Amino acid sequence: MDYQPRPEDVSFLLNAVLDAPARLATLAPFAEVDEALQSQVLEEAGRFVGEVVAPINRGGDEIGCRFVDGEVVSPPGFREAYQAFVDGGWPALSAATEDGGQGLPAVLEAVLYEWLAAANHGLTMAPGLLHGAYACLKHHGSEELKQRYLQKIATGEWLATMCLTEAHAGSDLGQVRTRATPQVGQADGSLRVNGGKIFISGGEHDLTPNIVHLVLCRLPDAPAGPKGLSLVLVPKLLPDGTRNAVHCERIEEKMGLHGSPTCTMRFDDATGWLVGEPGRGLAAMFVMMNSARLHVALQGIGLLDAAWQKADAYAAERRQMRAPGPVPASRGSEPADLIAEHPAVRRILDTQRAWIDGARTLAYRSALMLDVAAHDADPKARERAQRWCSFVTPVLKAACTHQAFHGASECLQVFGGHGYVREWGIEQIVRDARVTMIYEGTNEIQAIDLLVRKVLPDGGVGMSAVLLELRDTLDASREADADVQRRLAQLRYLGTTVAMAAHANPVLPYEVADDYLRVTMLAMMAWAWARIEAVAPQDADKARAAAAFRRWVLPEFEMRLGIVKRACETVALSHHAATPPGVAN
Amino acid sequence: MDYQPRPEDVSFLLNAVLDAPARLATLAPFAEVDEALQSQVLEEAGRFVGEVVAPINRGGDEIGCRFVDGEVVSPPGFREAYQAFVDGGWPALSAATEDGGQGLPAVLEAVLYEWLAAANHGLTMAPGLLHGAYACLKHHGSEELKQRYLQKIATGEWLATMCLTEAHAGSDLGQVRTRATPQVGQADGSLRVNGGKIFISGGEHDLTPNIVHLVLCRLPDAPAGPKGLSLVLVPKLLPDGTRNAVHCERIEEKMGLHGSPTCTMRFDDATGWLVGEPGRGLAAMFVMMNSARLHVALQGIGLLDAAWQKADAYAAERRQMRAPGPVPASRGSEPADLIAEHPAVRRILDTQRAWIDGARTLAYRSALMLDVAAHDADPKARERAQRWCSFVTPVLKAACTHQAFHGASECLQVFGGHGYVREWGIEQIVRDARVTMIYEGTNEIQAIDLLVRKVLPDGGVGMSAVLLELRDTLDASREADADVQRRLAQLRYLGTTVAMAAHANPVLPYEVADDYLRVTMLAMMAWAWARIEAVAPQDADKARAAAAFRRWVLPEFEMRLGIVKRACETVALSHHAATPPGVAN
Repeated sequence: MDYQPRPEDVSFLLNAVLDAPARLATLAPFAEVDEALQSQVLEEAGRFVGEVVAPINRGGDEIGCRFVDGEVVSPPGFREAYQAFVDGGWPALSAATEDGGQGLPAVLEAVLYEWLAAANHGLTMAPGLLHGAYACLKHHGSEELKQRYLQKIATGEWLATMCLTEAHAGSDLGQVRTRATPQVGQADGSLRVNGGKIFISGGEHDLTPNIVHLVLCRLPDAPAGPKGLSLVLVPKLLPDGTRNAVHCERIEEKMGLHGSPTCTMRFDDATGWLVGEPGRGLAAMFVMMNSARLHVALQGIGLLDAAWQKADAYAAERRQMRAPGPVPASRGSEPADLIAEHPAVRRILDTQRAWIDGARTLAYRSALMLDVAAHDADPKARERAQRWCSFVTPVLKAACTHQAFHGASECLQVFGGHGYVREWGIEQIVRDARVTMIYEGTNEIQAIDLLVRKVLPDGGVGMSAVLLELRDTLDASREADADVQRRLAQLRYLGTTVAMAAHANPVLPYEVADDYLRVTMLAMMAWAWARIEAVAPQDADKARAAAAFRRWVLPEFEMRLGIVKRACETVALSHHAATPPGVAN
Repeated sequence: MDYQPRPEDVSFLLNAVLDAPARLATLAPFAEVDEALQSQVLEEAGRFVGEVVAPINRGGDEIGCRFVDGEVVSPPGFREAYQAFVDGGWPALSAATEDGGQGLPAVLEAVLYEWLAAANHGLTMAPGLLHGAYACLKHHGSEELKQRYLQKIATGEWLATMCLTEAHAGSDLGQVRTRATPQVGQADGSLRVNGGKIFISGGEHDLTPNIVHLVLCRLPDAPAGPKGLSLVLVPKLLPDGTRNAVHCERIEEKMGLHGSPTCTMRFDDATGWLVGEPGRGLAAMFVMMNSARLHVALQGIGLLDAAWQKADAYAAERRQMRAPGPVPASRGSEPADLIAEHPAVRRILDTQRAWIDGARTLAYRSALMLDVAAHDADPKARERAQRWCSFVTPVLKAACTHQAFHGASECLQVFGGHGYVREWGIEQIVRDARVTMIYEGTNEIQAIDLLVRKVLPDGGVGMSAVLLELRDTLDASREADADVQRRLAQLRYLGTTVAMAAHANPVLPYEVADDYLRVTMLAMMAWAWARIEAVAPQDADKARAAAAFRRWVLPEFEMRLGIVKRACETVALSHHAATPPGVAN
């Protein structure tokens, strides 16, 4: 009952719904990447994930990473699987060919990582972090650093970490205290790094001989707050092969994700080199933020799909009680019906399916926009793609990870008491998924990022442009499409409403940010399902999921819309009441 | 940071909101149980739970129960704490004085168990099961069995189990196969029991010398299905002190609740005695069903309160970033504000508080109705109380346990990354709470029990009577009360709507049962909050929770109402369309 990728499901969304092959063909680096090649890559990726990565997932949870004498011992099979991953060229799928990569589109890598997370979230954390480090170094590293580290990281020969969090500085990175000090008379321009970091995924492990840490630090005399932060590269092994003074002090006992070591790191006069300019550490680190957050959204989608696969298989075998209504064909002479025939179970399965494929459509479109933003010859097209990513990424990160946890819990419910015990592996998915709502910026921070930092500053104009892009793909003569157009219009108007209310009460957007994000996700999901149904009107499974989406998921749109609107009205009312007549504000 | 019961919070709800002391005083057995005595019991219970039970909760999770050579070893401190629980007379709080009990009201026991579960869900499972066994034996046991077991169980000297589930028979107990065979010429009238049971909480442990199993079995020639089930008492130690042939084969590895052993039991010609009549096993077992399910609801409330306490304390200490809006008094010269000042965190805390106290009000009222149903001199009053319990119990069981898991997860979110690691104990609560959505009848089965088995058979009349009871406590001249009356009226009408639609499509109620249950809970919570606000108009904390309830929780009422109504309309439309003109149905 290990996770099994289904390339044909993904290809349907990429090809029929999103027209990805045609769009990619317009981008110079992917002129040769036709639909046949894409299918072949997905087939091979699916096979690798299903055969090599999925089978060791449970050991990763039950045995987990162990901390022995300052070293981290990976769970059984992880080293071999990671080596096979490197040997297959998978870490470098989308890296530039000059860095040892395959130069394939980001959208294919997105699918690969969705499947990896579905099959084995713990193992996936290891290579998941090298992409950010690769991009960061490629954009901001000195020639010397690139020479030394870029290809090793691109190919996965060495793994990398992002060392941001400190005990007192989580969401608030401005409070980071780790120091980096220049060494007078040091010929190699190196710095000495001192301080402690927590929650460092893969801070220590036995998967690769070297580990490259990108560490957020403060140079001497740096101003307080985020503008005083710089980025420093600290390798576990120094260029001469000796051990650097960076060490793992312990690994966390976590709710899940036992296959990935979460390390407390100590830097004691460790040697490092500046990446990018002093005081520009956050900017350098966040060069890949949209991509990293999209990948967390994809983890969510993958974990939900993994939970769905398990529940779907169980419901097709387990028999309990008679189902109401007409005699199901599956009854035969059995004393009880398949639980898949029971409406409560059917509803859970169809609803999660609706989330998976709706969210996939949006996430794959975002990945495609990463490719367009990077490679389109037309700067306007790049800008539009960048805008899409900027607005849609926080929505997907929060909504897909929220659904991963809650939807996986629904799938657990299908198993009854059997879901609560380890045997079927479903409870592991619930535990593993929980972290995705927290890391790469908590879901609350995603909502504030969307509404406060992106939608409101221009009064909703940018967001409106994104929604108009979606509207223009719809055909108002179709009933379903007209319904989506109406919702998109409501959502555009909502941005203006909140912007006006925020003038009177600047706290309000922080209070309703979560609702605003949800209503956005639901409108976009409605768009996705309208598109899916338009291209596959005869597909019974899709029709069932679409119906579940409309019946059980979409009603939250009106609820959330109402919450935001009422909050805005209350502000308007109390503001008018508090303003004496004749006094403008 | 262990859980600390707050008797004053509970007393406010019992005394000011529910007028419990006055109601209890009208019941003959509790004529002497005045408010002062009730307060004293709660104070002592709170102290016991806080000092003895809460501190060993984490060890219960981390070390858990261990299975060693066929025996279960309890986590550190559990034996001593359980012995102190027995010595304090707590197991027998509500048991009859003639059975060694204290004869106190069920409503006080309800509060005790809410706190026990909040402090240590695992340990609470052990005594939690003796109450059902006590009632079952008291109502259905032979004089001889009562003589032998009743007092031992009432006082907690011996613990008990309910052996229902088998591998292929979970929600569907009609499929139970364990056999009980009379022994020809056996003077003691005993039976021989053979079969296997799974998911038996406390099937084996070292807390008490004897364990009394109540086992659902099939006598020879019993008809298939639930009507062929009988109940048999199988003690671990036989009356002569020898070991009976009932054994634990293994204990489950579970997502949580590690402090309670979940046993796979084997009966190999074990000796047992029939309890009640042959073929009436389910009826005998379910004599305490409302009470047992209410206690699971209370576990949910307790676990949510435990999660809230942790998150509230953390939010009052942890500082991250500046809060938006006016400078909070707590800022001082700190570089960052308390996270309790951040709107997203405030919303989580206030929303969960709204759930806890709203649900408590309803759960305590239900417990009070158990007392009324058992002891009121007026048979009409007993019947009304019984009706309340019948309709409200499944609502509370499902809604409170759902909120326990989801609300605890929200509280975890307050901790950010620190919530995902063991240190703060919040992730344990999420894992422990998850099982309450499954056991004592899954939440899906609660919803079907409510709508299909209780509301629909009489066309909504009984449910309507329950809602009218609530309406009659309201004062329509108050705006908040009038709003609740409107919702209760909508809910009454909804029952009729579903009953009519169910004629055309008998599957429909199964599809919307969950929405119907939610809309019922939300209307009743609105009632609870209107009552709380009416008696405590000046309480700032309560006002904040009430506002959170109306802003963030109550909007789901309209959403769920809409889902059910649209489903009914669709049925009506398609039914009309499918019926040729002139053909009645």
